[in-house]
Order: sequence, then structure tokens, then C-alpha cells
Amino acid sequence: MTTTTAAKVDTGSDAVREALRQAVNRLDDTIRPVVSYHFGWCDEHGRPVRTNGGKSLRSRLVLHAARAVGGDDARALPGAAAVELVHNFSLVHDDLMDRDATRRHRPTVWAVWGDAVAVLAGDAMLSLAPEVLLESGSPQAVPAARMIGAATRELIRGQAADVGFEHRDNVTLAECVRMATGKTAALLAASASIGAVLSGAPPRSVTAMKHFGHHLGLAFQLVDDLLGIWGDPETTGKPVCSDLRSRKKSLPVVRTLEAGGPAGRELALLLAQPDALTEAQLRTAADLVDRGGGRRWARAEARRRITLAERSLAVVPMAETARRDLTDLANFIVERSA
Amino acid sequence: MTTTTAAKVDTGSDAVREALRQAVNRLDDTIRPVVSYHFGWCDEHGRPVRTNGGKSLRSRLVLHAARAVGGDDARALPGAAAVELVHNFSLVHDDLMDRDATRRHRPTVWAVWGDAVAVLAGDAMLSLAPEVLLESGSPQAVPAARMIGAATRELIRGQAADVGFEHRDNVTLAECVRMATGKTAALLAASASIGAVLSGAPPRSVTAMKHFGHHLGLAFQLVDDLLGIWGDPETTGKPVCSDLRSRKKSLPVVRTLEAGGPAGRELALLLAQPDALTEAQLRTAADLVDRGGGRRWARAEARRRITLAERSLAVVPMAETARRDLTDLANFIVERSA
Repeated sequence: MTTTTAAKVDTGSDAVREALRQAVNRLDDTIRPVVSYHFGWCDEHGRPVRTNGGKSLRSRLVLHAARAVGGDDARALPGAAAVELVHNFSLVHDDLMDRDATRRHRPTVWAVWGDAVAVLAGDAMLSLAPEVLLESGSPQAVPAARMIGAATRELIRGQAADVGFEHRDNVTLAECVRMATGKTAALLAASASIGAVLSGAPPRSVTAMKHFGHHLGLAFQLVDDLLGIWGDPETTGKPVCSDLRSRKKSLPVVRTLEAGGPAGRELALLLAQPDALTEAQLRTAADLVDRGGGRRWARAEARRRITLAERSLAVVPMAETARRDLTDLANFIVERSA
Repeated sequence: MTTTTAAKVDTGSDAVREALRQAVNRLDDTIRPVVSYHFGWCDEHGRPVRTNGGKSLRSRLVLHAARAVGGDDARALPGAAAVELVHNFSLVHDDLMDRDATRRHRPTVWAVWGDAVAVLAGDAMLSLAPEVLLESGSPQAVPAARMIGAATRELIRGQAADVGFEHRDNVTLAECVRMATGKTAALLAASASIGAVLSGAPPRSVTAMKHFGHHLGLAFQLVDDLLGIWGDPETTGKPVCSDLRSRKKSLPVVRTLEAGGPAGRELALLLAQPDALTEAQLRTAADLVDRGGGRRWARAEARRRITLAERSLAVVPMAETARRDLTDLANFIVERSA
């Protein structure tokens, strides 16, 4: 089932890659190899490689949303490239801010080329995103580019909140959800609505797609946070319990802390101690999130968001195959292991 | 004369400030105060202040170019706000990359709030720039936003080259001019052409304005580099000989090194020694750039660029007052002391 889903949602990724390559080719000789490396098209010496370039979830969402409202891939492709550019700009800058040295089993951009180049490579991708849309000649390029702009602002708000959380031990679950809405859900909401708007869908369908993407985005973040604690390092490319190691205020952790009770209080004490957590303490912390209800809650909330996402689509008339493709994408998100 | 020029080119800056404020108000509670501080509207605690918020050269250029082709300020304002957003995004990120702790006599954003917030504040300004244009409802918003995108790409290329120069001692004058074309001239060229395009000027006038801005930009950088060596710290807000202190490959320095001769060779030796330069050595280095011809060349080249800028305008029919305003702006650039 998972293999089928994964294979199905991969449709169109070659065309997206080609659109991205064309955009990235406009960058100069200093920045282009860095961005190409980040996308997984070459190694740090510029030699072509074939790597797992990430899930391409956002561009898939653009294409599926476009098909669902009767549009075709050709019209939606600039949108697919634009959302990947924004997503990858944020990854390069976030890795720098968070000092994450590894992504997709490879050293991150700042780890290879230093801080200045990472700042510039992210800037270049961010700047390309609206350009790709505005140069497409699509009659809907302006609303699509405005959606990209608004989502980028939300994304920056979310990342700023996340950075701020590091210095606070009283983050509420509501704040945490609001942060995830900005950092993750906004661009998925924009992806789905851009696919619809580039296909000339009516406002009602565009809004429905936005809600679909929003709920999908929150489900995605909840699963991401679960994988940040219980994910298999082999698959995720991150260390065991990586989010606990970095004491990230992730959704299941904050839910456990806010719920209080013996597990929540013990977890708070454990996370408050100044020294690095030992492997044994990390296992204890993960167990406390489980016993304190954070794990169960996050799983249930992810499923609830998927249901809300699917319900959002109810008002959009579409072929059953298109609806199933969107549902498969949603299920892929909750069932994924990396 | 300087006072009159400065006063004249200040026209329209209140309206630009208001347009910028409206754009910045869209940012969230974390990033908005940081951007407001950078623009000089408040101190680091958010208390309103009245500071010298910079020369606003780029927005003035947009407005003057618009007026010259018969447009009005109202149509050009979104362009004026957009170029200031791009310019200021680059200042915030460049200060971080170059570890410059002071700008306009105040601590820089990274020095007050740290690296992550500086990255995010720059990202937010960059992302707002096309939004401001696309939301303006101008029929020329798309070409203007594409010009902003292309100029941003050039700007990033220039900064990437500048960062790369730090690790090289064989930078040629041609490379240095190409770097300045990206880092400085591209956005001035875009400013002038955006003013024209938003006013509905014909392509011939838009191109002429672009050339005007390009030459103006190179003149600006040449004067900037002269001030980086001989500027009065009281006026520039930078230490004496600041560019020599940081061994920046500025245009007059590279010209002196490339010219060779006794002064060029002595300067090369001085800049190659590993220790920090003493105040006496800094004075010697400045003297060598003078004796080696770098200072004279930069002055002459700045004047030549101003002449080329004015000649570019010859093909654009405009009122004599408008032509004089643009000429005054050009003269302000070469005569300025900060």
C-alpha cells in the first residue's frame, strides 16, 4: 500500500525537476552549484549525482490540486517550482539558524560552504520563486505570486516563533500550533490553492484547496514531530530522539508538558536540567511523552486533521480518481516513516 | 550647493516612508520591530525615534525617473517602496555576513538580536518587495516585479563575488567592476527603469533609464570606496580607513595593485602581512593608494560614469526641470561626504 501510494504521488516530479533546473540555471557560477547541491542534483564538487532529493510534497500538492480542478500540469508547473523554491530557501536558512549539519544524509549548505554562502543561496531561491511565476505568462500569475508572498511571510513568522521558543520554557500548545501553522501549514495551503488558481478554478474551490492544504500541513508537522522522537535514524537521517536531544518544543512534547500529571512534570524537570541528555535520559524522555499522552494525542490529532482536510474537499466537484489521488497524498503524509 | 541638492532630492521621502510603513506593518510582532529599528523608525525597545534613516537614494531615483517620463508619484510609490525593501534586505544580510556591528551610527540587527533574527528580518523584507508591487494594482506591476527579481539576483551575485574576493589576493579590476555592477549598479538601474515602467514609458525610455541608473550606480560605488578610505568618521559613521582596515578589495585599492609600480607593490606587501594593520600602517596604505593613482583614477572614473549617465538620458524627451533633478541627484552622489 505504502509503495503504491509513494509511486503514485511521484507522478510529475521529473517535470518539476526540469522546471526547477531551468530556474536555478539563471543563478551565477557561485550560487548555482550550491543550490544544485542542496536539491541533490550534484555533489559538493558539482559532479552529477542521483540522490533522494526530498519528498517534493509541496510540488506534488500543486499538481494534484490542479488536476483535481480540471487543470493540467503544464499550467501548474511554475507554481510547483515556486513552492519548492520557497520550501528549499527555508530549509537552507533554517539549517543555518538551527546549526543542523546534516540533511537527507548529506552535510548541509552552511556546513560545506559556510554561513555567508548559505545566506546567499537561500536568498537566491527566495527571490527566484515569484520570478518563476511572473515569467510563466499565466493569466493567474499575479494572484499565485501574491499567495507565495503571503505564505513566505507566514513561514518566516513561524520560524521566528520557533527560534523564540528556544529561550522559553512556558510555550503553550496553542502557541505551538500557531507556530506550526506558519512554519509548515501555510506553504502547503498555498501549494494546494496555487494549483487551483493557476488552473482558473473559482474562488470557492481555491479556498477549499487552501483549507485542505492547511489541515494537511498540520498533520504533516504532527507526524514530523512524532518521527523526531520515534523515527528510525536509518530512514530519517537524523539521530535517535533528535528533537528531544535538541529539546525542541515540538507538539507532542508541549502537549505532554501542558497536560501536567506525573509524566509531564518529570519531563519538565528532565528538559530543564542544564547538561546534555544521556542516551538513557533520552529514552526516559521519549517514554514520558508516551506515558503523558503526547504521542497518542499527536497521532489522533494528525488523523483528525486528515479527516478535516478531506472534508474541506467536499465542496469541490472533481473526478473520483482526482479525489483519491489527493486522499492518497494525505494518507502518505500520516503513514510515512521519513 | 550641496544643501540645495540634498534638500531637493529629499522630495517624496515622507510618502515613501509611509508606503514602507504600510508594507512593514504586515510583518508579525517578532520581525516588525526589528525591521522598523533597521529603518530607523524606533530604537531596539520599539520606542519611536527620529533618526537619519539613510540616503533613500534608490526610492528617490524611482520617483525622479517617474516624473521625468511624465508619470506621477502615486503610481511610482510601490516601486519606490520595493527597491528600498530590496536594498535594506541586502544591508541586513550583508552586515551579518561581513560581521559589521555598526550602521548609521547604531548597532546592526545581528548585533542587537542575533544571527537568526537578522536572517529572518532580511528574508521578510526581500519577500515583501514583489508583494508591494503586485498588490498595487498597477498595470505595469508584473514587469516591475520582474525587474526587482532580476536586480535581486544580480545583487546576490555581486555579494557572492565580494565574499569570494576575501579569500583571494589576485582580484582584477575587471572582476571588481563586475562585482560592483551586481552589488550596487543593478538595483540603481532597476530603480530608474521601474520608475519609468510604472509610469507607462515606452521601452526606449525604460532602457535609457536603466543605463542612467547603471552608470550612476558605478559612480556611487566609486565614491563609496573613496569614502571607505578617506571619509570623515564623524560623517560616515565608520572608523578611519575602514575599508583598508578590513583589507576590502575596493575599486581604488584594486586599481592601485593592478597598476603595479613602487606604490602598488608596497601596498600589496602591506595588505599581505598577517597581523592587523596599525594606525600608522593604515595611513601609509591610504597614502600608497593615493600615490599609486587609485584615488585619482576612482575620482575620474566616477565623473566619467556621471557623464555617461547624463548622456544615457539624451534619448528621453523630458522637461528641463526633470532633467535637472536627475542631474542634481547624480551630482549629489559624487559630491556626498557620507
